[in-house]
Amino acid sequence: MSEKEWNKLGAYLKETQILGSIQSTLYWDQNTGMPKKGASWRSEQLTYIAKILHKRNSSEEFSDLIKAAQDEFRGGLDKSLNQEIIRSKKRNLELLIKEFNRQKNLDAKLVEALAKAKSKGYESWQEAKRKSDFEIFLPIFKNLIELRIEETKQISDKYTPWETLAQPFEPDLTLEWLNKIFQPLKETIPSLISDLNKSEKYHWDLSPKSQQNLCSKLLDEFGRDEDLVVVAKSPHPFSITLGPDDYRITTRVVEGEPLSSFLATAHEWGHSIYEQGLPSQSHQWFAWPLGQATSMGVHESQSLFWENRIVKSKSFSKRFFKHFVSEGCSLNNHLELWKSINHLKAGLNRVEADELSYGLHILIRTELEIDLIEGGLEAKDVPSEWNKRYEELLGIRPSNDAEGCLQDVHWSEGAFGYFPSYLLGHLISAQISSQMEKEIGLIDNLVEDGEYEKIILWLKNNIHNYGRSVNSMKLVRNVTGEELTSKYFVNHLRSKIKDFC
Amino acid sequence: MSEKEWNKLGAYLKETQILGSIQSTLYWDQNTGMPKKGASWRSEQLTYIAKILHKRNSSEEFSDLIKAAQDEFRGGLDKSLNQEIIRSKKRNLELLIKEFNRQKNLDAKLVEALAKAKSKGYESWQEAKRKSDFEIFLPIFKNLIELRIEETKQISDKYTPWETLAQPFEPDLTLEWLNKIFQPLKETIPSLISDLNKSEKYHWDLSPKSQQNLCSKLLDEFGRDEDLVVVAKSPHPFSITLGPDDYRITTRVVEGEPLSSFLATAHEWGHSIYEQGLPSQSHQWFAWPLGQATSMGVHESQSLFWENRIVKSKSFSKRFFKHFVSEGCSLNNHLELWKSINHLKAGLNRVEADELSYGLHILIRTELEIDLIEGGLEAKDVPSEWNKRYEELLGIRPSNDAEGCLQDVHWSEGAFGYFPSYLLGHLISAQISSQMEKEIGLIDNLVEDGEYEKIILWLKNNIHNYGRSVNSMKLVRNVTGEELTSKYFVNHLRSKIKDFC
Repeated sequence: MSEKEWNKLGAYLKETQILGSIQSTLYWDQNTGMPKKGASWRSEQLTYIAKILHKRNSSEEFSDLIKAAQDEFRGGLDKSLNQEIIRSKKRNLELLIKEFNRQKNLDAKLVEALAKAKSKGYESWQEAKRKSDFEIFLPIFKNLIELRIEETKQISDKYTPWETLAQPFEPDLTLEWLNKIFQPLKETIPSLISDLNKSEKYHWDLSPKSQQNLCSKLLDEFGRDEDLVVVAKSPHPFSITLGPDDYRITTRVVEGEPLSSFLATAHEWGHSIYEQGLPSQSHQWFAWPLGQATSMGVHESQSLFWENRIVKSKSFSKRFFKHFVSEGCSLNNHLELWKSINHLKAGLNRVEADELSYGLHILIRTELEIDLIEGGLEAKDVPSEWNKRYEELLGIRPSNDAEGCLQDVHWSEGAFGYFPSYLLGHLISAQISSQMEKEIGLIDNLVEDGEYEKIILWLKNNIHNYGRSVNSMKLVRNVTGEELTSKYFVNHLRSKIKDFC
Repeated sequence: MSEKEWNKLGAYLKETQILGSIQSTLYWDQNTGMPKKGASWRSEQLTYIAKILHKRNSSEEFSDLIKAAQDEFRGGLDKSLNQEIIRSKKRNLELLIKEFNRQKNLDAKLVEALAKAKSKGYESWQEAKRKSDFEIFLPIFKNLIELRIEETKQISDKYTPWETLAQPFEPDLTLEWLNKIFQPLKETIPSLISDLNKSEKYHWDLSPKSQQNLCSKLLDEFGRDEDLVVVAKSPHPFSITLGPDDYRITTRVVEGEPLSSFLATAHEWGHSIYEQGLPSQSHQWFAWPLGQATSMGVHESQSLFWENRIVKSKSFSKRFFKHFVSEGCSLNNHLELWKSINHLKAGLNRVEADELSYGLHILIRTELEIDLIEGGLEAKDVPSEWNKRYEELLGIRPSNDAEGCLQDVHWSEGAFGYFPSYLLGHLISAQISSQMEKEIGLIDNLVEDGEYEKIILWLKNNIHNYGRSVNSMKLVRNVTGEELTSKYFVNHLRSKIKDFC
């Protein structure tokens, strides 16, 4: 099979990837190193790169390159023998064409208006949150919703408006599918919460330095290669890939929450190890779609796996307690550490939520979003609707907008359709964990023996290595032999609650 | 005066500056945060940006924009009244045209060959230095010299080949001028060294953490704005500007050298405060030539001023000794600290050289370079010539190439013409300091009173604010009323030696 046109397309994608990774590096620096006053120039740099990237991704040149590569591929099809390469190439082309079509239908004016609205939205949200006043954010919020609805009209694919916005995060997601999976949770979780006895909260703290040391030890325990993965501090923890061999993780220290940085590090490690395991063969490398993560739901499943399945396991506390002791932790034994890590209490805040109530935070946001985009809910009614639904589902009511509907950043940047990924991540993680245990033994035993390499290898072979060759639904089916369901997650919650009673 | 074309040119320059500052950000991250394995992808990113930058700086579009702005400027000349703006615009145009002409004559093939040779040269030099074997570096060194000589032929301006290479660092420099200034030093410094009694070396050290604390306190003392200037660690200290309001400084801890990071911080602060003081009016802003530093000699004069005039002053040791004590310094009093900071001893290493012998290191390199580029010295003879000249001028002989001609990075990247800037910096700093003392009082007194703001204001008004509106020769003349001379530097050395006797 001739590969001339294919390689030309690859060279184009690589250049796009270089620009994309430069954008990521600027973003990384913005969050970990940049002095405050550098913000305005940084935004000029980022706008500049975003403009070039959009141009590249919707250019005629790109379209021609894809077509030529496709023609070459079709022409050479029967002459080639390696079926796996053919499948990969086909899938790469399909994904490129899908994304290109999404981009090309967008009016340049809309793209610019959206970019501006997002940056204005973020600013306005910050102020509104600080002053706990939704009214400040309302005008730009309305504008963002209108613009994104307009976007869905211009894209005009087979999906409903909200589904269209969710596609980049969870490809092939439909409302019907989502409903089927989420509905049981809406019914089950509140009853589980009411079953729960009061979970004891231990009051203790660690110095920032000790927390940092524990995070380092945690990554050493997991087998981090320091020449490959760098850690820094940032206001919000995140994980980012800056090159095929350049991974970064951030964490933050929260006063009075000695486990916050620790759990965040485990979480971001999960994201990072997924990216590290993505396929890197030349035809599906870094720059090609197949070299990328398949969905945000799967991404979250990987971070949540390390946070909730590994670090929150009993054997992990048993194994790691000595390190907490040597950093001055005042808990009496590893069971107290385990209880501390697994403290269950429904609160108003999503980020700080326990495994049990987390899903409800997502259900409320998801439903509100869908109502906003295609259900006729007016932007101005979000605060009252938010509070009402929190009261209904979690039995608590925010006392102001800052701890209510203004708590999360997503909507301020017009990101609708992202929230479900978090809950899908919990579900996927649970279902996959169950399969992993069938194949290589109980996680509790693996952790007890420090068999992290074995765990990573299993994840790599069953999840990471597939990149975008399959969507999340198919990935879950392939790995576990059944469709994604909430039952494994609910079982996990039940057994955790049992442990506490 | 219409400014339509002028503003178009400004917009183009701003875009170039955005790209340049992205390049700098990648470089910053490479040296402060990047994991080792990220190097290869980073080099792809940097090559990509360098290619775009070269294209922009030598494009027909750029040339047309300059011409149009020039025509507009000339056409509107007599209608305008503000002479200062006219002068600035004229100078901006002159500098842009000069640089464009330098770029446009270069063959694209040569540019590429040079880029490759530089990166190969750096690699090969690292290996050669590690193994202390000049022969490893020799082939690529020869190639670099040939390519850079070819470059001077293509540029073909009024300068000699070596002068041509030195222009980007020290605009308008000629060998005749340089000789006149450097010759007295070659005669004077060796005799000063022989006059010097043995300067006592104190043996003490500080923990890395203490050194870091002292560097922070130093910057606080100087009035650093933390929202504007960020500090990090890197293998080699440097200062870099990433945006109009984004300054970065790095330092490193050297075992057994408790003052190394401290002096480096003072040095980099000097570079940074110069950049912070550059003119920022719209017509000579960040992106325009006039908003930039006028020469590397002047840049070095600013860093050396803070390192040698401020931190090495007696009153600084007196004022700052308490901080050294609180960080566990074992010296007995501030005089011992002062002697420690000012320890004078000729050695083989330029970077660790004292103020007295520093000039000789530069003289040797400068003469060797000139001989290599236009004096018929063969690359293979550099080690023996190097050693011979060190013996003649400093009375010491390197025992191997690593501590001899392989010690500095500059030639490995084909950077010829840079070294004199260091010595010019010493001279400019001395001459300017003398003028400053006439105008606002003795530096020793200013430091004693902590009048750093007053010092910075004087530097800003007399040096920083001029940007590239005048070259270094004119700047020195304007500030001090006389041509640059070595006498102020020699006087400074004499008085320092006297202090020690």
